[in-house]
Amino acid sequence: MSANDSPSGQQTTTSASLDAVRHATHDSAFLKACRREPVPHTPVWFMRQAGRSLPEYLKVREGIAMLDSCMMPELVAEITLQPVRRHKVDAAIYFSDIVVPLKAIGIDLDIKPGVGPVIAEPIRTRADLARLRDLTPEDVPYVTEAIGMLTAELGSTPLIGFAGAPFTLASYLVEGGPSRNHERTKAMMYGDPQLWADLVDRLAEITGAFLKVQIEAGASAVQLFDSWVGALAPADYRSAVLPASAKVFDAVAPYGVPRIHFGVGTGELLGLMGEAGADVVGVDWRVPLDEAARRVGPGKALQGNLDPAVLYAPAPAVERKTREVLDAAAGLEGHVFNLGHGVMPTMDPDALTRLVSYVHEQTAR
Amino acid sequence: MSANDSPSGQQTTTSASLDAVRHATHDSAFLKACRREPVPHTPVWFMRQAGRSLPEYLKVREGIAMLDSCMMPELVAEITLQPVRRHKVDAAIYFSDIVVPLKAIGIDLDIKPGVGPVIAEPIRTRADLARLRDLTPEDVPYVTEAIGMLTAELGSTPLIGFAGAPFTLASYLVEGGPSRNHERTKAMMYGDPQLWADLVDRLAEITGAFLKVQIEAGASAVQLFDSWVGALAPADYRSAVLPASAKVFDAVAPYGVPRIHFGVGTGELLGLMGEAGADVVGVDWRVPLDEAARRVGPGKALQGNLDPAVLYAPAPAVERKTREVLDAAAGLEGHVFNLGHGVMPTMDPDALTRLVSYVHEQTAR
Repeated sequence: MSANDSPSGQQTTTSASLDAVRHATHDSAFLKACRREPVPHTPVWFMRQAGRSLPEYLKVREGIAMLDSCMMPELVAEITLQPVRRHKVDAAIYFSDIVVPLKAIGIDLDIKPGVGPVIAEPIRTRADLARLRDLTPEDVPYVTEAIGMLTAELGSTPLIGFAGAPFTLASYLVEGGPSRNHERTKAMMYGDPQLWADLVDRLAEITGAFLKVQIEAGASAVQLFDSWVGALAPADYRSAVLPASAKVFDAVAPYGVPRIHFGVGTGELLGLMGEAGADVVGVDWRVPLDEAARRVGPGKALQGNLDPAVLYAPAPAVERKTREVLDAAAGLEGHVFNLGHGVMPTMDPDALTRLVSYVHEQTAR
Repeated sequence: MSANDSPSGQQTTTSASLDAVRHATHDSAFLKACRREPVPHTPVWFMRQAGRSLPEYLKVREGIAMLDSCMMPELVAEITLQPVRRHKVDAAIYFSDIVVPLKAIGIDLDIKPGVGPVIAEPIRTRADLARLRDLTPEDVPYVTEAIGMLTAELGSTPLIGFAGAPFTLASYLVEGGPSRNHERTKAMMYGDPQLWADLVDRLAEITGAFLKVQIEAGASAVQLFDSWVGALAPADYRSAVLPASAKVFDAVAPYGVPRIHFGVGTGELLGLMGEAGADVVGVDWRVPLDEAARRVGPGKALQGNLDPAVLYAPAPAVERKTREVLDAAAGLEGHVFNLGHGVMPTMDPDALTRLVSYVHEQTAR
């Protein structure tokens, strides 16, 4: 497919330029670590590295609603690049929101500041499933366009594609917004397992398609965020979530790009999340990385896992706790350094820049 | 000491009546399970069983602020008894709030509806520690009085005393209120370990004294709630929290009443929470009880662990998930059935009543 074939008529990435991106990023520390190959230094990126912790982000977002910003390709590209420029992280992550693909297929939703995504009409019955139609590249032209711009700028720095996992999307859709206890979601999961299975299967189709768009536009890896799945016990994860998450990973498997999977509070689920098809399993700060490696088993890289709250302590404490993470990671097959959860808006960006540099120094080979 | 010796002049419990309480409750299923002795049926109680899920609670609390209600002995006794009457649970839990002992020693705080405890002047420096004075029985006459009334009514049903653990109290005090990420708390813990250690040691003294008042008034067991401690990795728990929690348990050890310890999201900490001195370790729903028993080791009973959200599903699903908990508990030395977290305000109380009866039926020996 050439740029001229792009159905939306917008900028896209040709096969030739996709090959160029693959070639440029192939030997990056980040992709090597994901592939469990020797690295020049431990690569670092931060979940939510693009966002409210950066004054330059607040400036470009001024007066623009979150969902609107996700559909403005130049803005997405700028926001995605900001932390790469500032912190010298080893990977960019596509700036988006978990609900963007749902919005793209016509679900009436909004992201309310201080609240999160709010769904106008929650999905609670079999009839509601009909509202979850397939996602096509034409639904998200801004994604293809933004990634085209990004890969041109990023050079050898890989771009990580991004999507929310079926369980987390289902929770937003069923609850109608963010939920602490996921009561309605679990009531459906426990009370009507077939409806639940059909719901997450639909969401797996949509999510797989959304990630494919990003990979075909030039993303060198993908991360599937299952933000809320730590609310489940392992047996429920296995029966009610794993098949749908595996379907997402299977959909993008043919591209051969590393697939990262992360959820907070998932200590009990790490092995199963690897089993779902992740090449790299993200670990929050509650489980030391050596213990996480035992749970995940061989053949997977790990990502993590400094407690984000450590960044609020003085520099010597940050270095000491970072050292603990690196020590626990010493025996891993592959390690991508990250926080154990997202960057928080009140974090000092300079502390993050220092952290990147400290990890690079400490792990230089 | 006789009732007339009571320094506050209010009703208290004599040694003779304390012996009577011990005698009346000794062979209860709940205390037997805590002591890992054979039981006639698996005992059941629910965290937050006294509270907003019950219409009779909403009625008696009408127009009375939360903290005020905790200081009204007749009201505390009535609220504590309500779920025992309605659900036929095997134990009562003293109605209070985690911040009551802090209020009692003069910390300026309030419980704001929909928010939680708010501390007027947070504790953040060494000088602030001076505001954490010792707690004496005279600071909480309403506790002694309410428990005196309760034991008279409860007969053979044991009353569980209640306190918040040092880490959780410290988080409220340092943050100034509820916190999602405990940034300031952890910044102190990581950045000034000596100040932190002194803070939680002070809180351990206060908490130990508060539990002693409850036991001397007639509580047959105590539960130390460390609501937020699941935010810590095991190494941090061991160095920064375990010594303080152990000090609380040591303070009440001479009374020989079972000591229960619970925190949500503590899968990684279960062994250490037992090590701190718990006789019964509470488990949230994320870790199956048989796996929890492996982590805790021999010589401890376990409490838990039905996912509270299951109660929102239809009755057959509740029974199926309850059966799974009972099956996982089959090999335990001692098992107290509970939810894996507190009762939620929107729960149907009838579903809880049915659950008690179902567990009793299924486990009758």
